[in-house]
Amino acid sequence: MNNFDFYCPTKIVFGKGSIAQLNDLINEAVGKGKRVLMIYGGGSIKKNGVYDQVKAAIKDHKLFEFSGVEPNPTYETCMKAVKMVKQKRINFLLAVGGGSTLDATKFIAAASKYKRWKDPYNIVSRSLPVKKAIPLGSVMTLPATGSEMNCASVISRTSTQEKHAFRDPKVFPKFSIVDPQTTYTLPIEQVRNGIIDTYTHVMEQYATCDVNTPLQDSWALGLIKTLLQEAPKVLANNEDYEAKANICWCATCGLNYWLSVGCIQDWSTHRIGHEITAFYGLSHGQSLAVILPRLWQARKQDKAQKLAKLAREVYGCQEADDLKAADCAIGKTEEFFNSLGMKTKLADYGVDSKEAAQRVKERFEERRTLLGEDEKVTPDMIYDILMNC
Amino acid sequence: MNNFDFYCPTKIVFGKGSIAQLNDLINEAVGKGKRVLMIYGGGSIKKNGVYDQVKAAIKDHKLFEFSGVEPNPTYETCMKAVKMVKQKRINFLLAVGGGSTLDATKFIAAASKYKRWKDPYNIVSRSLPVKKAIPLGSVMTLPATGSEMNCASVISRTSTQEKHAFRDPKVFPKFSIVDPQTTYTLPIEQVRNGIIDTYTHVMEQYATCDVNTPLQDSWALGLIKTLLQEAPKVLANNEDYEAKANICWCATCGLNYWLSVGCIQDWSTHRIGHEITAFYGLSHGQSLAVILPRLWQARKQDKAQKLAKLAREVYGCQEADDLKAADCAIGKTEEFFNSLGMKTKLADYGVDSKEAAQRVKERFEERRTLLGEDEKVTPDMIYDILMNC
Repeated sequence: MNNFDFYCPTKIVFGKGSIAQLNDLINEAVGKGKRVLMIYGGGSIKKNGVYDQVKAAIKDHKLFEFSGVEPNPTYETCMKAVKMVKQKRINFLLAVGGGSTLDATKFIAAASKYKRWKDPYNIVSRSLPVKKAIPLGSVMTLPATGSEMNCASVISRTSTQEKHAFRDPKVFPKFSIVDPQTTYTLPIEQVRNGIIDTYTHVMEQYATCDVNTPLQDSWALGLIKTLLQEAPKVLANNEDYEAKANICWCATCGLNYWLSVGCIQDWSTHRIGHEITAFYGLSHGQSLAVILPRLWQARKQDKAQKLAKLAREVYGCQEADDLKAADCAIGKTEEFFNSLGMKTKLADYGVDSKEAAQRVKERFEERRTLLGEDEKVTPDMIYDILMNC
Repeated sequence: MNNFDFYCPTKIVFGKGSIAQLNDLINEAVGKGKRVLMIYGGGSIKKNGVYDQVKAAIKDHKLFEFSGVEPNPTYETCMKAVKMVKQKRINFLLAVGGGSTLDATKFIAAASKYKRWKDPYNIVSRSLPVKKAIPLGSVMTLPATGSEMNCASVISRTSTQEKHAFRDPKVFPKFSIVDPQTTYTLPIEQVRNGIIDTYTHVMEQYATCDVNTPLQDSWALGLIKTLLQEAPKVLANNEDYEAKANICWCATCGLNYWLSVGCIQDWSTHRIGHEITAFYGLSHGQSLAVILPRLWQARKQDKAQKLAKLAREVYGCQEADDLKAADCAIGKTEEFFNSLGMKTKLADYGVDSKEAAQRVKERFEERRTLLGEDEKVTPDMIYDILMNC
């Protein structure tokens, strides 16, 4: 096991009816009488009743609203919210929605306190440390990104077609409320995307090289088993509370980094996927479903041991040879994605793989970035991977 | 899954050489220039070099020392430290040692800020909320209690032969350093006790009634599998770094409550075990090893589903009948304890089971306390359980 630090001070309040605790949670985090900016997306929270629940819950604070955060939230939209934060002298941010809303809120929290003469985009593009941020909390309505229990955020920039992630302890939510009932009205595409996002988060932490972490491995595989077991239930019935609760908790644990302390992580599927989203507008889940199986195919030699363990312990594969078992893991994973109704080829989304391969390859060449747990994923390998997508 | 809150703001710094980060960690937690009281036990930290490492690491603070915390730390000893805290105007506490030292430090942190005219023993005996506490951190040298990543503490009172637990968020360590190398010099009894303590922590969270928590269950069973796999390695070689690291991380995760969010917990083995320790001086691990199998025997009907799952998933039991599979889990658990060299009968420790049964029964009768996840463990059942121990 490698040396590690672990720190996650976010309070999770999970379960039926938990939005009612919102007022007390804000009081506990920052005291009474704050100027709270509620940040949300396109208005789905007005249809599913969450907006009303939030408004009804908040009693001791003055509430302002900023709506219009898009999926793959943009720097441009966030900067409008930053302007409002300054104008209205906001001192607490409340994200209400899915991972995009919360990611945007984390960036807004940091950018609002950024030095006036500097470009806050540095926080994402150059991963500069955040010195100050406005405190924030969340009401999470979409199990997917795990953003509710980590300090990571992914922001896109429309003007340059870029998508970058940053991570900073200053933007941990003080609390996150997860009520599985708020997910009952999600469109099936979002349920599916969320499950694939969670699957990929776990695998980017697990399917790397083995540094003797049996506990972490068993947890990663236990999470995947739970996903395989619960996913068909939520697809069959969007209001199956127990299955939804299990899927929600899997999503949170998929990226609170409990699974991967002391492990070597990968994240190349996400990095390549971000480019596909930035260039072609595939949803985050779609981009991952396309890339993960092909990336594994290209990296099979290096990932054989962990992929074989996945095949044997989760998919019941009896194959003694690691490379053959790894093939089984790749096949079964793609089969699972397809079983959710997710397409796993770029052509399925009207994207020409050769063009995509060329554009993404050039981008990583410009950035001089190597990906993967061992930095073996070169621009040329990315080209080959995308040609096979 | 039941509704739950989860909160754990302790920073874990894990791995080889991590004590060197101590000074920075204190600075990060409370700033420079503090009056730090280092609290430790009987001096084993002087033999294994940890004392010197701590002294060498601390640069920006004035260091004071309080030694003599005993296993099953007593209220009486803690109150001596409280006196010193007040006299020396201490503003940070640093526990260096095992769970007993840290448990004592948590109590000292709370008792030092307790209202002057009230008896701090109320914090443990009546579980009164802690309003203020001195901030604390730890250097953990014994994988067992999980105290390094929770806000729980168990304190004994010599004068009344009592042992009580309390839990309060005000006594979370700001940080805990876990360097598996510090455990190389542990006597084998302590290694064994620690493994059994961890096993029992996990089982008191898992082996209750099933409320549909497949992820949490898989993690609990993954932890038990890891213990079974790594325990023989550390017993064979006290300096096997990889195995020690895995055992240390299992111990921390065994009681940071990651395993049991949304689950129903038990803790009756611990509660009965505390009385056996208070009356007869068995170590905590010994008391658990004696009680857990016999308590499961008595509660087999109610715990059958979870015990059967343990038997099948961890011990490879093929028995289709839940009650028969539960018997397998009980037998295999006792076999595992014995394989570590742990005796599992009261008579092995020179304790008369009839006398113990009578004394402990009377104590729970006086307290009018029912134990167990369903409060079905009556004083009469405790009597029967101890008669079979």
